[in-house]
Amino acid sequence: MEKMNEIDKITGMEKFGGSPVTFDKIDVTGGFWKEKQDLFYNKTIKAVYDRFEETGRFEALKFNWKEGMPNKPHIFWESDVTKWIEGAAYLLQKRRDTELEAMVDELVECMVNTQDKDGYLNAYFTVVEPGARFTRRTDHELYCAGHLVEGAIAYAKATGKTAMLRVATKYIDLIDRVFRIEYSAAFDTPGHEEIELALIKLYDYTGEERYKLLAEYFINTRGTSSRDETYSFADQEHMQSHLPVRKQVTAEGHSVRALYLYSGMADLALKNKEEELYHICKTLFSNIVNKRMYITGGIGSTHHGESFTFDYDLPEYTAYNETCASIALAMFCRRMWLIEPDSRYADCAERALYNTVLSGVSLFGDSFFYENPLSVNPKRNTFNNSRPKGLQEHLPIMERVKVFDCSCCPPNLLRVVGSVADYMYSTVSDVIYAHCYMNAAGTVLLKDKEMGLVQKTKYPYEGRIEITAQTEGDYTVALRIPAWAKKSEITINGEEITVPVVSGYAYCKRSWRAGDTIVLNLPMEVKVMEANPKVVDLCGRGAITRGPLVYCAERADNNLELRDVRISRKAGFTVKQETLINTEVPVIHTKALVRRIPEQLYLDETVTKKEIPFKLIPYYTRANRGITEMSTWFLLED
Amino acid sequence: MEKMNEIDKITGMEKFGGSPVTFDKIDVTGGFWKEKQDLFYNKTIKAVYDRFEETGRFEALKFNWKEGMPNKPHIFWESDVTKWIEGAAYLLQKRRDTELEAMVDELVECMVNTQDKDGYLNAYFTVVEPGARFTRRTDHELYCAGHLVEGAIAYAKATGKTAMLRVATKYIDLIDRVFRIEYSAAFDTPGHEEIELALIKLYDYTGEERYKLLAEYFINTRGTSSRDETYSFADQEHMQSHLPVRKQVTAEGHSVRALYLYSGMADLALKNKEEELYHICKTLFSNIVNKRMYITGGIGSTHHGESFTFDYDLPEYTAYNETCASIALAMFCRRMWLIEPDSRYADCAERALYNTVLSGVSLFGDSFFYENPLSVNPKRNTFNNSRPKGLQEHLPIMERVKVFDCSCCPPNLLRVVGSVADYMYSTVSDVIYAHCYMNAAGTVLLKDKEMGLVQKTKYPYEGRIEITAQTEGDYTVALRIPAWAKKSEITINGEEITVPVVSGYAYCKRSWRAGDTIVLNLPMEVKVMEANPKVVDLCGRGAITRGPLVYCAERADNNLELRDVRISRKAGFTVKQETLINTEVPVIHTKALVRRIPEQLYLDETVTKKEIPFKLIPYYTRANRGITEMSTWFLLED
Repeated sequence: MEKMNEIDKITGMEKFGGSPVTFDKIDVTGGFWKEKQDLFYNKTIKAVYDRFEETGRFEALKFNWKEGMPNKPHIFWESDVTKWIEGAAYLLQKRRDTELEAMVDELVECMVNTQDKDGYLNAYFTVVEPGARFTRRTDHELYCAGHLVEGAIAYAKATGKTAMLRVATKYIDLIDRVFRIEYSAAFDTPGHEEIELALIKLYDYTGEERYKLLAEYFINTRGTSSRDETYSFADQEHMQSHLPVRKQVTAEGHSVRALYLYSGMADLALKNKEEELYHICKTLFSNIVNKRMYITGGIGSTHHGESFTFDYDLPEYTAYNETCASIALAMFCRRMWLIEPDSRYADCAERALYNTVLSGVSLFGDSFFYENPLSVNPKRNTFNNSRPKGLQEHLPIMERVKVFDCSCCPPNLLRVVGSVADYMYSTVSDVIYAHCYMNAAGTVLLKDKEMGLVQKTKYPYEGRIEITAQTEGDYTVALRIPAWAKKSEITINGEEITVPVVSGYAYCKRSWRAGDTIVLNLPMEVKVMEANPKVVDLCGRGAITRGPLVYCAERADNNLELRDVRISRKAGFTVKQETLINTEVPVIHTKALVRRIPEQLYLDETVTKKEIPFKLIPYYTRANRGITEMSTWFLLED
Repeated sequence: MEKMNEIDKITGMEKFGGSPVTFDKIDVTGGFWKEKQDLFYNKTIKAVYDRFEETGRFEALKFNWKEGMPNKPHIFWESDVTKWIEGAAYLLQKRRDTELEAMVDELVECMVNTQDKDGYLNAYFTVVEPGARFTRRTDHELYCAGHLVEGAIAYAKATGKTAMLRVATKYIDLIDRVFRIEYSAAFDTPGHEEIELALIKLYDYTGEERYKLLAEYFINTRGTSSRDETYSFADQEHMQSHLPVRKQVTAEGHSVRALYLYSGMADLALKNKEEELYHICKTLFSNIVNKRMYITGGIGSTHHGESFTFDYDLPEYTAYNETCASIALAMFCRRMWLIEPDSRYADCAERALYNTVLSGVSLFGDSFFYENPLSVNPKRNTFNNSRPKGLQEHLPIMERVKVFDCSCCPPNLLRVVGSVADYMYSTVSDVIYAHCYMNAAGTVLLKDKEMGLVQKTKYPYEGRIEITAQTEGDYTVALRIPAWAKKSEITINGEEITVPVVSGYAYCKRSWRAGDTIVLNLPMEVKVMEANPKVVDLCGRGAITRGPLVYCAERADNNLELRDVRISRKAGFTVKQETLINTEVPVIHTKALVRRIPEQLYLDETVTKKEIPFKLIPYYTRANRGITEMSTWFLLED
C-alpha cells in the first residue's frame, strides 16, 4: 500500500505538471539521429533551399510579382519559407554557420522590407489579390502567420537576432486586433489550423498573455461560428469545424489540420490545467491509435481531402499517410505526455517518427515523399500513368522527388530532424521522464537546478540504453518501457533492480551521484503483428516489427509475387546488420512460403508451395533503389 | 489411332462449321430459366417500360422536345427503347400478348413518323443538335443504329410485322452510303461498337451482302483512321482503336464496347472462315479468362472508363463488372463456340450468365444493378455518402434501383433472359452440340431435318441432365463437360457409356431412335477456388462455388466481420434447398473460424479463434434483403 501511495505521489498528483525539455539543452552526439542530422546539415537544408529558390518561393517574398510573370505567389508559399527558416534555425542552434545564417538573414530582410505598415504580411494577398485580405477562410493566411511565428522564435533562439520575431509579433498583433478585438475579418477561425500552437509558443517565449488569449479565442470559437465558410468541395469536418472542439470525439477531416489543432488544444489544456479539454484530446488520441492509424504511425487513409476516413479503414496501396501528418501526430503526442505521463504517447510518437516521417526523405537526404503507402504495386502505377488524365485514379508516387507544388513536407522534415531531441525528456516536479531514447548529452532543469544526463545507445537498432547522471541529487528518472518491450531489464551501476512501473514508465528514485549509470535493456525481438479483425484490408495478414521499426519487403531483394508471400511466427528470424545504399541497417531474414505460378486464373485446388529465403528492410528505408514492388503486410500462416 | 481420327473428323475438320440454334426453336419449359422468364414476362418488361416512360425516353421518340422542356433527349436513349423492344419481342416470340404488342407498335409508329426522308433517325441529333449529324464519333449514333437493327429483326421474327425493320434498313442504307460509299461522315468507325454484330445479324436475316460488307468495313477500318477522334478524357484504347483489330492481343478499354466488337469480329471470322481473325478472338478470350475476369464472369475492373485495366488486377470492392459487359461476354462466347467447339467458351458464358448477369436484377424482377462488385462494405459506402461530392470516391451502389440515367443494363437483361435458349445448342455437320443445360424442348436443324430434343434438368441447382431424342437419325450429340465437373457420368437408356471427350465435349455418336435418352450426371461438388498468386487482391483467399454458381456470404445471414472469416476445405459443406425471399435456392452451410474482436488495432500475438456456423448463398441472389455487408473471397485455412 505504501508503495502505491508512493507511485500516486509521483504520478497521479502531477497531472498538468509537465515541463518540456527542449532540444537546445541537448546535443545529439552519435548514433541514429546524429547520422540524420549530419545528412540534413550537409545536404537536405541546401537541397530544399535550392528547390525553393528555383520555384520562385523566395523571390515571391519580394512582392515584385506582376500579372504575366512566372511563379505567381501561392497562398501558402510563405509557410514553406518560414518552415525552412525554422529548420535552418534548429541546425544553427547547434552549429554556427555564417553562410546559412546569411541565407536566412536575406530572407528576413525581405520580410522586414515588405511587411505592411499595419503589420500584414502575405505575398499572395498583397500582389495577386490585394483586396481579399482576411476574406477567405480557406486561403491559409493564418496558417502562414503561425509558421512565421514558429520560424521567428526558432531563429531568435538560435542567433539572438530578433528582426524576424518583430515582424511576426507585429503581424500577430494585427491578427489579434482584426480577429479578436475588432472582429472585422470576414471569418472567425483559421481554415488550416497551425496558428494556435504557434501562439502558445509565442506566449511561452514572450510571456505575453494576449497571445494565449488569441489561441484560446481561435480554439474555443472553432465549430461555433456561422461566418466560418469552407471549401466548395469540402465540409466543416474537413477543417474540424463541424462541432465545438470540446464535442469532437473522433479524428475527422484533413489529418494535418486535425493534428495541428489537437496539438494546440493539448497546449491549452496544459496551460489551463483543463481536465475537459485534456479528456477530449485523450479521446481523439485513442480514436486515432485504436482505430485510424497505420502500423507505421501514418494517418489520413485517403487522398480525398488528405483526410481521415472511418474506423478501421486502412487500405494499403492508396494510404495517404502524409509525412506532415505523422510529424504533427508526434507533436501532439509530445504535448500529451506533458499533461499526463503515459507511455502510449511516446510509443505513438516513435512509431510515427521512425517509420512514416523518415520514409518521407531518401537515404540521400535530397528527395521526398508526401504520401507513404503501406504497399506499392508498380504494375498498377504503370497502367495508371499510361492512361489519359480523365481515366486515372490517384495513386502515391513510387520514387521520391526533389520538390512538390505543395511542398510542406520537406521543410517540415527539416524542423523535426533538427529538433528531434525535443522528444527525449520532460519533467514533472522532481521526476525526469525519459521518453524517446537517443545517443545524446545535455541538461534537464529540475527545480532550478540543471541536471546533466548522458545517454548512450544504438537505439532503435539495439535495445541497450545507458543513462549516466552527471549531477548529484535526489530525484526520479522515469524510463519509458515501450509497449512492444515485454521483458525489459534495468540495472543501476550494474545491479539489477525492480522498480514500480506505472502507465508504461519505470520510476527509478534515488539519491544520484555523478557517474551513476542506469542501463535499460529493451528486448529487440522480431514480432509478427496482426491487425484487428475489423480491418478489412489487413485481415489474415501480418506485419513484421522490431523495436519501434516496422519492416517491409521490396522486390529489389525478393524477386517474388510479394503479395502472395506467407510468413510464419514459427519460421524464425535472423537479424543482420547490412549496408543499404549508404547506411548500415538491421535487416531481417526469414523463410517464407510462396505458391508456384499456374497458368489459370482460378483453381480448385491448393497450388504447391515452396519455401524461399525472404528478406525485410526497415520501412523507412524503402524506395531507395528505384521503382520496386513493396509490401508491409504478408499472408500469415499459423 | 482410329479413334483419334474419328474425333478429328467430328471436331478438327469442322472449324468454322458451326450453325447457331436460336431460341425461337426452343421452349424453356420449366426449371431455373422458366422461373426467370415468367418473372420477366409478368413484371420486368413492364417495370422497365414504366421507368422509361417516366423518364421521357419514349416521349423523346416523338421529336417534340424543345429547349427549356424537361427530359432533353439523350444521345443514346434510342438504344434503351430499341433494346426494350427487342426484349419485348423475345417474350412475344413465345406468348402472344396484344397489350405488349400494342405498346411496341406505338413506339414503332413513332419511329416511322419521325424518321427523316433520307433514313436518318436519332432524336438528339434531330431536335437538340440538328447540325451535328455524324460529326462526333463519341456520340453513339451508330451504336443506337445497331440496337435499332437488333430490335427490328427480333420484332419482325416474333410478329411478322416489318415496319420497324423497314425503318432500320432505311437507316442502315443511309449509314452505308455516308460511311462506306460516299465517305462523307466526319469519322470512320463507331465510338461505341455494336453496329458490327447487328449488321451481321441483318445480313443473316436478309441475305443482303452489303450489310456484311459494312460490318467488315467498320471492323477492318478500326484502329487505322486518323479521323477517328476519341473523348477528351479518354484514349483510343478506350474504344479499341489503338491498333487495327488484328493486332489487338489484350482486352483493353471500355469493356462493353470491347466485347461487342469482339462479338462482331467472331461473327466475321465465322462468316469468312478467317483463321487470323479467329486467332485474335481466341487470344483476346484467353487474355480475359486467364488474366482479366472475376470469378463471377464480371469484366471491367474499374469504373474509370468502365474499363479493363491490366493483367491480374481484380479488386473486389471497386470492381465495376457492368451487367452489360457480362452479357456481351456471353454473346462473344456463343459466337466463339460456333467457330470451334471448346467447352471453355460455354464455361465462360455460364459463369457470366449465372453470376454477374443475374446479379444485375433483383429476385423481384423490378430493380437493377449496373455494377457487380465482389464484396460490399456498407461502412465504406456510408462514410463516402456522408462526404461532399468533391471528396467522394466512386463506389458501387449497395441496393438495386429501378432505373439509371444510363439505363442500358435493364433492357439488356430483358434481351438475354428472353432469348436465353440461344445458349443451348449449335450444330456442326451431323453433330449437335449441347452447351448450356436448361429444362427445355425444341428442335435442332440437322442437314435439313428438324431433330426434336427434350431436355429435363434442375440445373444449375442439380447436376442431372436428361436429354431425350424425339426424332430418329444417325448423328452425334456432343455434351459439354464443364471444367468444374471432374467426374461426370453419361448413360444412354440407362447404360453407362464411355465416349471420347475432346476439348470439353463428350461425343455421343449413335443411331438415335425417338425416345432414346441420354443422362449426363455432373457432380455438383462444393469447391473452394484459389486465385492465381499474381492476383494481389485475392491472395490467401478462397471463393466457394458449386457447379456454375459462385457463392457469397451476407451479413444478413452471418453477423460477423465477414472479411475475417476463415474457411477450410476440410470443414465440409452441406447443401440445403432454402427459401430466399421468393425463390428456392441451394444454400451452403459450413463451419468457419473467426477471431474475437480485441480493443487494440495491432497485436503481437494470434487472436483467439472460434468456430462458427457459416452460411453462403448464390452470388446472384445477393443484395435482396436491404443493405448488408457481402463477401465472396474468404481467408483460406489449409
